[in-house]
Amino acid sequence: MDDARRDLELDAIAAFYRQALAFADDARALIRDALRRGVTVKQKPDGSFVTDADLRVEERLRARIRAAFPDHGILGEEFPAHNPEAPFQWILDPIDGTEDFVHRVPTFGSIIALYYRDRPLIGVLDHPALDMRASAGFGLGTYYNDARVQLTDPAPASDSARLVLSARANFVRYRDAGDHFDRLVRVYPNHRIYRSCFGQTLVAIGKADAMVDYHDRPWDLAAVPVLVTEAGGTYRLLHEFDAEGAPVRSVVFGRARMVDDIAAVLDNKTLNAKGS
Amino acid sequence: MDDARRDLELDAIAAFYRQALAFADDARALIRDALRRGVTVKQKPDGSFVTDADLRVEERLRARIRAAFPDHGILGEEFPAHNPEAPFQWILDPIDGTEDFVHRVPTFGSIIALYYRDRPLIGVLDHPALDMRASAGFGLGTYYNDARVQLTDPAPASDSARLVLSARANFVRYRDAGDHFDRLVRVYPNHRIYRSCFGQTLVAIGKADAMVDYHDRPWDLAAVPVLVTEAGGTYRLLHEFDAEGAPVRSVVFGRARMVDDIAAVLDNKTLNAKGS
Repeated sequence: MDDARRDLELDAIAAFYRQALAFADDARALIRDALRRGVTVKQKPDGSFVTDADLRVEERLRARIRAAFPDHGILGEEFPAHNPEAPFQWILDPIDGTEDFVHRVPTFGSIIALYYRDRPLIGVLDHPALDMRASAGFGLGTYYNDARVQLTDPAPASDSARLVLSARANFVRYRDAGDHFDRLVRVYPNHRIYRSCFGQTLVAIGKADAMVDYHDRPWDLAAVPVLVTEAGGTYRLLHEFDAEGAPVRSVVFGRARMVDDIAAVLDNKTLNAKGS
Repeated sequence: MDDARRDLELDAIAAFYRQALAFADDARALIRDALRRGVTVKQKPDGSFVTDADLRVEERLRARIRAAFPDHGILGEEFPAHNPEAPFQWILDPIDGTEDFVHRVPTFGSIIALYYRDRPLIGVLDHPALDMRASAGFGLGTYYNDARVQLTDPAPASDSARLVLSARANFVRYRDAGDHFDRLVRVYPNHRIYRSCFGQTLVAIGKADAMVDYHDRPWDLAAVPVLVTEAGGTYRLLHEFDAEGAPVRSVVFGRARMVDDIAAVLDNKTLNAKGS
């Protein structure tokens, strides 16, 4: 299969990568400032939260992207798409885990990604309250803060493997995949449940073994594919459908063998009986 | 019921509280030092992890307690009990969430508590990598870092309430209460799964609504009762039994009305059918 990304010079990718990191620095400064000053919270029609900080961060990122790359497109959680036909597309979730942000649970984060002809080129997951950042560029590797990371593949036993999951609320929104949640928590009892961005960061930098992230929007999953594959792990789409006019995706990613094992657990209904 | 704690002067309790905070400062410094220098990890006979940092922190805390309070008792995770008949008992878990500590997931923490005639007097939950500390003294209130906290009781709807749970591994260790986990994740789909200390901190300072913490040892639960009750919340023992010569407890705590609701969910098998 042709990979359009290979048409790009590594130097050009590195320049985009540096810009993405500068955008993340800017988002981090705005978010830290908002934490100091306090935020205004509104509930969106779908029941989720949005704050003036989400809007301010996305506006700032959009302005910087338009200034630096006037011909690039932008898809973000809080505003309409810009230049949707352009080959380069920035995908943004200014604050993932807004509910945690509102309550000042420090695990929220920003998601910034750049795609080229629908293939992931740059990914940044930034946690302003934890001073943790995972970043990657196609062909450039994956980094935790300034250190290169590489996922080893020890194929941990299922009862000790560290699996991150979405909450069961995610598994039953849009469609009911509650039985997938129930199966996973039995086969992998040593799980954690975090919001997308923090779970993705932990897996991309090897602090957790894999994550199963269900029924997410494109911006929730924008950065993680290049982060995981550049670290030597596997990213796999489990299923995808449209809801309310946009794609909803469920994915598994992390250490390669564990991703295979999890996909088998989800495919094979007979494993449902395993565990209590 | 007589509460022996009422025989103590508030000044005396405040002095113990200041000492407990000083002990927590010391533990935090040792843990941060260990994170800089690296740690040696061993697996215990029960499969859980222990590091040289767990041992060093508990040794240091024990030495400081013996020096300050030679007639007090000490119960800790890593060493035999000291003065088990003394009316004042310090209970310690030097690093709760050792698995997270080993992987440098920043949510691990130290648990330090003082009991007087089996009643909780002082509680400290300290997170060295997050600069987060919850602390309380009987009659003195609950604090998040230096700010007093008070749990309000908005009785959130069950589908938006923020419930923290133990992993399902906890629910099925010692005895199989997997059905309790399955019931809770259906009734409260907006859950998180964290290790004890971090979940307890979030609930005690009002960043999560309640926690259900299953099949824990006394040191895991030592600090949380006084933290939650001094903040105006409820702490409730669900059940207790002995295993391998020591008590195993399951508890629910947090905003008062939510604790009542959760206890009803766990009591009432018919709610099992709720949700998908």
